[in-house]
Amino acid sequence: MTNVQFERIALIGIGLIGSSIARDIKELGLANEVVVSTRSPATLKRAEELGLGDRYTLSAAEAVEGADLVVVSVPVGASGEVASEIAPHLKAGAIVTDVGSTKASVIAQMQPHMPEHVHFIPGHPIAGTEKSGPDAGFPGLFRGRWCIFTPLPGADKAAIAKLRHFWETLGSNVDEMDAEHHDKVLAIVSHLPHIIAYNIVGTADDLETVTESEVIKYSASGFRDFTRLAASDPTMWRDVCLHNKDALLEMLARFSEDLAYLQRAIRWGEGDKLFELFTRTRAIRRSIVEAGQDVDAPDFGRHALDPKRP
Amino acid sequence: MTNVQFERIALIGIGLIGSSIARDIKELGLANEVVVSTRSPATLKRAEELGLGDRYTLSAAEAVEGADLVVVSVPVGASGEVASEIAPHLKAGAIVTDVGSTKASVIAQMQPHMPEHVHFIPGHPIAGTEKSGPDAGFPGLFRGRWCIFTPLPGADKAAIAKLRHFWETLGSNVDEMDAEHHDKVLAIVSHLPHIIAYNIVGTADDLETVTESEVIKYSASGFRDFTRLAASDPTMWRDVCLHNKDALLEMLARFSEDLAYLQRAIRWGEGDKLFELFTRTRAIRRSIVEAGQDVDAPDFGRHALDPKRP
Repeated sequence: MTNVQFERIALIGIGLIGSSIARDIKELGLANEVVVSTRSPATLKRAEELGLGDRYTLSAAEAVEGADLVVVSVPVGASGEVASEIAPHLKAGAIVTDVGSTKASVIAQMQPHMPEHVHFIPGHPIAGTEKSGPDAGFPGLFRGRWCIFTPLPGADKAAIAKLRHFWETLGSNVDEMDAEHHDKVLAIVSHLPHIIAYNIVGTADDLETVTESEVIKYSASGFRDFTRLAASDPTMWRDVCLHNKDALLEMLARFSEDLAYLQRAIRWGEGDKLFELFTRTRAIRRSIVEAGQDVDAPDFGRHALDPKRP
Repeated sequence: MTNVQFERIALIGIGLIGSSIARDIKELGLANEVVVSTRSPATLKRAEELGLGDRYTLSAAEAVEGADLVVVSVPVGASGEVASEIAPHLKAGAIVTDVGSTKASVIAQMQPHMPEHVHFIPGHPIAGTEKSGPDAGFPGLFRGRWCIFTPLPGADKAAIAKLRHFWETLGSNVDEMDAEHHDKVLAIVSHLPHIIAYNIVGTADDLETVTESEVIKYSASGFRDFTRLAASDPTMWRDVCLHNKDALLEMLARFSEDLAYLQRAIRWGEGDKLFELFTRTRAIRRSIVEAGQDVDAPDFGRHALDPKRP
């Protein structure tokens, strides 16, 4: 019996996500050949050292020749360029997907280049860490996580089913929704949190009255939780901000409005308003833990991991 | 040889912090007798079931009789009431300390009640988790963390040294600063992060276009990091907001100003400004990890803890 789902898979981009997919494909034996491509010679060399594929090339066009599945894992701002480069070389019947964090923009960039004879199915695995590059990937990253497809109207059902099966084999649950809704959902669950995290770390860095060394020493009291997100890949996140602008600006406006309400409650000593919010938010964490989307260990279980603390 | 540092220690309040101190005292043998007191009969009963002390009483006044060290671990808004209750019963030469997250307010509430013959040394251990109550405590919570003293001018050096030795035995590093500076530092490293976390969880909860179930399902993409802080004790955090108002409002104003700058950069597509900030913030996380104040494992090592994911 074989686990092979695709004869040849081309991975365009081999960072945290691309290299985690590569590791899963290899471990599970899902393809007979994996071709790895990236624009950076240093990254390509590293991918080869890590043995992430069977062939390696700096040319995305060359990589997709004869591939049955093409997975584009690049910063969303680079999607259009990749699409135009690979389009003339895509095999008839190939499935082309991506892993970008914004979907309307990726569709707008890629769809116009896609030939009639391929199946373009935009996708977004909701998984990752704050690390980036091919060394940061690991097998099992997608296990227990969601992957969202935003297929275009009229997309081929069989191709969607085949791609769904692929992601399910990687351990993910697959959801489908339209790109606009995806972008709104991700704006609140991912993009706004990252912007806020980057922002608060910047605010702390700029203070004159509190030194950076103080911020670092006492960070265990809350601040350090934000620094994880604020350590994420700057290129990826710059592109996300620029490519999900409308939804993100809407969420930012709501966030600021709510914060002004809290600020006013603090100024006027309205403890009841604060207590009401602070109680309501506890329930959401409980639901996230129950849904298996976070660990139940206090403090993210950091005590258990830190060798200095039993 | 004995490890006893105080003949009798009275713990007023036995939540996450108080009960962690109780566990350390017992484990390390730092007192001959520990008296536990709390206003809530249910909590007192639970403390007794957990064996956190040697004697248990609902009366703080009774608890402090004859104690050499009194540790007040209650929401900061209750400090004044506790101080007025215990003051007439304090033993001459006793050290009275607290663990409150705001210091100027605690001093303003407690100091007027303190008799001449005791040593009042306000303190704040920078440690905790999002859980609360006597069951949430554990031995070693303070190990590798900082504890800040904000002694009043003219405070007894020998008493400070004795209390410092106590916290150092619990594994903490002790710093001293004035209360006003403490309150500014904590406003940025702890109070603002909590407010922001509570706020963003509230914003997500209020959306009409994105369901709560979607927020929960896809929370691994960033949002869930905020929910830990937003699950913290509502009473404690209401009090912190009300009792460190000025410093917190200052930090909120700066945060909002910086966020408006980011928002404008997003609106006008100024990628360079975003990239500059997103790069700068990476360095701070690195420093926090190097300082031993966070674990280096990607994603807070949640992969390692989750039994569903190898």
